[in-house]
Amino acid sequence: MTTPNEDYKGYRGTALETLQKFGAKVWSELRVTNTEGVFEGLLLPRNETAGPGHIVLKLPNGYNIGLATAKITDIQVRGRREAIYKIPERTFPQDPGKPRVTLLGTGGTIASRLDYRTGAVIPAFSPGELYGSVPELANICNLKTEKLYGVFSENMGPEQWIGLANAIGREIRDGADGIVVGHGTDTMAHTAAVLSFMVQDSPVPIVVVGSQRSSDRPSSDAALNLINSTKAAAESDIAEVIVVMFGPTSDEYCLMHRGTRVRKMHSSYRSTFRTIGDIPLGMVDPENIIHFREDYRRRRKDRNVTIDAVFDDRVSILYYYPGMKPDMVDSLVERGYRGIVIAGTGLGHVNRPLYPALERATAAGVHVFMTVQTLWGYSQMYVYDTGRDLMGLGVVPLANMLPETAFMKLGWALGHSNDRQEVLRLMTTPVGGDITEREPFDGYLVYQGGVPEVEEFLRNYHK
Amino acid sequence: MTTPNEDYKGYRGTALETLQKFGAKVWSELRVTNTEGVFEGLLLPRNETAGPGHIVLKLPNGYNIGLATAKITDIQVRGRREAIYKIPERTFPQDPGKPRVTLLGTGGTIASRLDYRTGAVIPAFSPGELYGSVPELANICNLKTEKLYGVFSENMGPEQWIGLANAIGREIRDGADGIVVGHGTDTMAHTAAVLSFMVQDSPVPIVVVGSQRSSDRPSSDAALNLINSTKAAAESDIAEVIVVMFGPTSDEYCLMHRGTRVRKMHSSYRSTFRTIGDIPLGMVDPENIIHFREDYRRRRKDRNVTIDAVFDDRVSILYYYPGMKPDMVDSLVERGYRGIVIAGTGLGHVNRPLYPALERATAAGVHVFMTVQTLWGYSQMYVYDTGRDLMGLGVVPLANMLPETAFMKLGWALGHSNDRQEVLRLMTTPVGGDITEREPFDGYLVYQGGVPEVEEFLRNYHK
Repeated sequence: MTTPNEDYKGYRGTALETLQKFGAKVWSELRVTNTEGVFEGLLLPRNETAGPGHIVLKLPNGYNIGLATAKITDIQVRGRREAIYKIPERTFPQDPGKPRVTLLGTGGTIASRLDYRTGAVIPAFSPGELYGSVPELANICNLKTEKLYGVFSENMGPEQWIGLANAIGREIRDGADGIVVGHGTDTMAHTAAVLSFMVQDSPVPIVVVGSQRSSDRPSSDAALNLINSTKAAAESDIAEVIVVMFGPTSDEYCLMHRGTRVRKMHSSYRSTFRTIGDIPLGMVDPENIIHFREDYRRRRKDRNVTIDAVFDDRVSILYYYPGMKPDMVDSLVERGYRGIVIAGTGLGHVNRPLYPALERATAAGVHVFMTVQTLWGYSQMYVYDTGRDLMGLGVVPLANMLPETAFMKLGWALGHSNDRQEVLRLMTTPVGGDITEREPFDGYLVYQGGVPEVEEFLRNYHK
Repeated sequence: MTTPNEDYKGYRGTALETLQKFGAKVWSELRVTNTEGVFEGLLLPRNETAGPGHIVLKLPNGYNIGLATAKITDIQVRGRREAIYKIPERTFPQDPGKPRVTLLGTGGTIASRLDYRTGAVIPAFSPGELYGSVPELANICNLKTEKLYGVFSENMGPEQWIGLANAIGREIRDGADGIVVGHGTDTMAHTAAVLSFMVQDSPVPIVVVGSQRSSDRPSSDAALNLINSTKAAAESDIAEVIVVMFGPTSDEYCLMHRGTRVRKMHSSYRSTFRTIGDIPLGMVDPENIIHFREDYRRRRKDRNVTIDAVFDDRVSILYYYPGMKPDMVDSLVERGYRGIVIAGTGLGHVNRPLYPALERATAAGVHVFMTVQTLWGYSQMYVYDTGRDLMGLGVVPLANMLPETAFMKLGWALGHSNDRQEVLRLMTTPVGGDITEREPFDGYLVYQGGVPEVEEFLRNYHK
């Protein structure tokens, strides 16, 4: 199962056999014929977790494509092209007058020369590599980097969240003026939410960032996101956990989203992260930071950070669909889950056949909370009989907390206590905007302006 | 557990005892003091499924509120006010020159004088009642009505979907020029999706409609939605299953959404239904029907409808969250589920610990499909190792099919066959726009115009 040598780095099984049969090696320029057509591109190395049934080509347009070896009928080797991905390394300049920013890496595609996930990565990560790749960073801060993890973001879990929170606490206590967390985009919002609960009273910004398109593609958002997130960490006044990613209307700025109210809303667009049920905190570009609102926690150097990094993983999301049967609830109880976040329909509803199962669950001490799968709007369980009945069974509505945020918060709350009243108190006490008093009209579906300062800024910006 | 008499209609348990203690009866005007404050309003009757722990008041602003009897300290009776909810009944005019529309009722708040869900309902449903309540209907069609069910929409399930599809087939064969389905909003999109699969080759429009606010509230959308949906059923050229509900920009028109691409996106707004990943089919108001596009199935009287009303309820949605454990998959397999729709992160991903469980599932003959929880965008499982590995385990990506639509389609597909190839064929063959070739840019998050005809229409409209 291990790689024979660098010529076949990451390949095994039938993929390895196919390459050897046709004399193709990593970094070979290939013309591959399969049952669907002909593909020309560069054979990429793969990482050690790759499956054995595919080879991966980088196409001339920058996209990577996986080709099933079972369908390959011919491979012609046209040439070889390597090492064009080498990043020039230069000493990151130190300027005592500039803020200190720590970049903590967890994985993801930001500032790599090739998509890290394909294995064909020379990640730019040391300050020197980053300076060679994105020299604008030196205008902003003195940079320190530390690679904590190297996982696909769908593989982030409690161990990584806790380790990340502790590393953030350590860096803040060491005097960092801001933290940047490099993260894959799949579960970036989940991590931003849990950090909002695990890292309390931060005196400085904690900015989570990634990229939707790797930096070897012409349309990459990697450099822009990295520059803007570093600027937000170094200079922004917002001492909260925020996500800084590509804005919706142009490729010239990023939006700053509260960690508890952000969600990935498109599987492939760069402008995928959106604040749900509110307007973003502000925008940031290499020259400016514009706040859209005043209700945020200010940067204060004399405040001491508290790290409260606990998580009980015996929690689940029950995503309601019509016709759901009670065994979906019973299974969770029987398997020892301690907390359930329902994503209900409408104002927070499920069907009547689930009632006895939910009653059994709450009677067994399982903590059951209600959110809405509409994503926008509130769970209002006093309006209809269904809601009132569910509350009578012990199901607690969580206002406008997003289902994913509620899941992360419940794991965190159960890390503290299993006492019903205490869990209830933790869950329903707003932290970092996870519950808000109202959702503004211009926070529905898309941020479309409506804030005079922003509209004026955008007018001037595009002059 | 039965109601003693009309004075306490629907009340039982502690709610009944409390009312009797203070001499309060249904339709009494009350001043209720509880531990949270003082509430004045009209005591409403309740339906037979109501819980025993609350009384329900209609407040002067039209909202209903439930008050827990355990917290009530005093009730004063101020007066009595009944029968103001009586709907004038007038004979619905017949006009042989007008189209024939059948309104099939399943429940929900449309055209009721009070919210049906509270039990305090005098539903306007017969043609005569509807004519007395919404006389504009007679300008559009000859109306026939039939109440199929009276359930909250979260309680709709396979039995109701199949019955509804059969009733639609019967009415179309009887010569109806269009069908309107009255439906609660919670699971309206689910029902519209499954009808898109169960009702094939319809020669006429099938329009699903409801209301977000009951018709006794000043801001009700009930009459507008009913008029516009009836107009769409009677006159629209779109012989598909569509949802016609309140439009996003004003209260003057409704949008027409394809049944497979519509989703409820706000728990309380009237403009809650949105076409996802596309622009709507068009708009309709009492005077006009405007089509936004050409790619729909035309009305044709000489086409024969096929009713294909089957559903296997051994299907489930697995809504992925980071840290998910394999027991979530194993539970479904052990309990005999035959189909799983995963709502994955990013392009269609879950974590590695689930792989062995998914392999066990597909080896056991369970059909596993992948959708994306971003809602917008495609599941593209060829891009990353995670996706390729999951496909290697037998997980099949469903392009841009919505998770809820995929769930309904899988239940329908498994109603036909358990053969892997046949289920695969049914699931990946586009029906009614459930899978589309591309998502237009202006189909992301909100319909914001971009279609010249619509913008021109709106300009003229508001002159």
